[in-house]
Amino acid sequence: MDTIMLEHGSGGRMMHSLIRDVFVKGFDSPHLRKYEDSAVLEIMDKKIVFTTDSYVVDPIFFPGGDIGMLSVAGTVNDIAVMGAIPNFISCGLILEEGFSREDLQKIVDSMKQAADKSSCTIVTGDTKVVDRGKVDKIFINTSAIGTMIDGVSLSKESIKPGDKILINGFIGDHGIAVLSKREGMEFGTSIKSDVQPLNMLIKELLSNGLTIRFMRDPTRGGIATTLNEICDGMGFGIELFEEMIPVRDEVRGYCELLGLDPLYVANEGKVIAVVGREDSDKALEIMKRHPDGEAAAFIGEITEENAGTVSLRTTIGSHRIVDMLSGAQLPRIC
Amino acid sequence: MDTIMLEHGSGGRMMHSLIRDVFVKGFDSPHLRKYEDSAVLEIMDKKIVFTTDSYVVDPIFFPGGDIGMLSVAGTVNDIAVMGAIPNFISCGLILEEGFSREDLQKIVDSMKQAADKSSCTIVTGDTKVVDRGKVDKIFINTSAIGTMIDGVSLSKESIKPGDKILINGFIGDHGIAVLSKREGMEFGTSIKSDVQPLNMLIKELLSNGLTIRFMRDPTRGGIATTLNEICDGMGFGIELFEEMIPVRDEVRGYCELLGLDPLYVANEGKVIAVVGREDSDKALEIMKRHPDGEAAAFIGEITEENAGTVSLRTTIGSHRIVDMLSGAQLPRIC
Repeated sequence: MDTIMLEHGSGGRMMHSLIRDVFVKGFDSPHLRKYEDSAVLEIMDKKIVFTTDSYVVDPIFFPGGDIGMLSVAGTVNDIAVMGAIPNFISCGLILEEGFSREDLQKIVDSMKQAADKSSCTIVTGDTKVVDRGKVDKIFINTSAIGTMIDGVSLSKESIKPGDKILINGFIGDHGIAVLSKREGMEFGTSIKSDVQPLNMLIKELLSNGLTIRFMRDPTRGGIATTLNEICDGMGFGIELFEEMIPVRDEVRGYCELLGLDPLYVANEGKVIAVVGREDSDKALEIMKRHPDGEAAAFIGEITEENAGTVSLRTTIGSHRIVDMLSGAQLPRIC
Repeated sequence: MDTIMLEHGSGGRMMHSLIRDVFVKGFDSPHLRKYEDSAVLEIMDKKIVFTTDSYVVDPIFFPGGDIGMLSVAGTVNDIAVMGAIPNFISCGLILEEGFSREDLQKIVDSMKQAADKSSCTIVTGDTKVVDRGKVDKIFINTSAIGTMIDGVSLSKESIKPGDKILINGFIGDHGIAVLSKREGMEFGTSIKSDVQPLNMLIKELLSNGLTIRFMRDPTRGGIATTLNEICDGMGFGIELFEEMIPVRDEVRGYCELLGLDPLYVANEGKVIAVVGREDSDKALEIMKRHPDGEAAAFIGEITEENAGTVSLRTTIGSHRIVDMLSGAQLPRIC
């Protein structure tokens, strides 16, 4: 196919090949070749982190949040998982002619609230308005600059067999909250998006001298895709323990109804941390003590076997391979 | 009106009030209160400049350039006019399902070409794909980080009566090139967009010890709007000399045909520099020697009279006030 398909924006395998074949090749930049969500830059001998994300979520208001909150929290989280403190955010808005001023104000207020929660400042912006029908209501781009925390150095290369995999709570809430609202199925459910800035939790985790190897926020494509990105091409595998992965009953129910696997459903307030075995209990305790990680759990570990693949030990004790998302499970989820 | 109108994105008066009433008030950030296109940030005692812009130009390919070149050059220029060296660029793409891979590749190649010309690196990115009909082909956000040139400090506050106003060439080329293509009127004309990164010309201008007070790139809303932004609320006025403003005959002809004023038509490769009287000849010479400023001209000066307003001395010797753009002259021009 010579055209762009929804799958190219899903966070899964087709997006990865588009990024590789078109952007990394076309822009020919060493930073892009790292395939990270953020770039680590040297500016006058200082290490700063730079990231960008566009938000096209549909609907723009959903249980637990809106596109404004998402646009700040999502970008802040991309900085935070690099081991950096997010400082400054930009805000690029594309508005449809006829968009409600009241809704715009609500979205701006949410952005401010998320910026305050993460101690960031929105410092620059741009606004474009396009004719009716040429954009769906509002799209937001946020970019952010952060500063690396002294002494912190996270990398996939430092991950070792025996390391533990932690997550700060329930998976799939964001994807299901957005989908339930979009499909008009939100009544009678209590599922809310988990959208939240994670930088305070992450800072806490990084300032206790623990051996934290690597972190990622499992957004588009869910934890399955993020875990595959972590071990892809590396000399280790990942084993997940199904019964330890926190999934709300309601999310599980929705997933069964819709034929979705919670492992692939998007999150917007979750961080996966790979932690040295000896420090994993302490790290879990720190997460659980923090308001953004009360339901934190140990969900898997790094293995010597099955290098490059994610394997799930199911509740009945069998194993199955958990591949990267290969289609477009849920478009416009963020 | 409680809804967003095209005029809110025009670069003119309505956009300014939207920015003031919604964004500056809502985000409550000291950086936004400066009403600049870029923010100057202190990171670990270093001064860096941060900017963002979204590009929604229609059509995406136009005489002299495309949305890709525009998205890099436009953002680079926002950094450069602050007196900074642009270093790093991010690229956030929103693609319509069904968009041509070939066109995407052309756009990526243009971005790379513009990045190379300005010695910048595209270091991070994001791609979203939305369903057919929910976005018009492709929108691009670029954000950029630059570093302030040592010893350079540009500000409106330093502008004094007697200072000269220079521009690096013909006005209105970009707006008319885009419009002629959009309206199917491009055949038989040779008008090309002036889209180009200006940072090399600006660096040259700033590295000769001349008294450069202030610079701006007159994009949306044209030079009329930019000059109004420069003197608005300040203790000086601006006098423009109509016969000295470089306008191509063809652009003038198009403008007459379409009822447009070239002073309000968008540029994408122009910089307005306010220069100390004693250095203005030297500055003009530097511009003219540079390939990006061969048609540079002295177009006006700073006056003590008429504080806060821009006045045009017409070719017949009369004067008229040149106000900020107040409607949506040309939507989706960048």
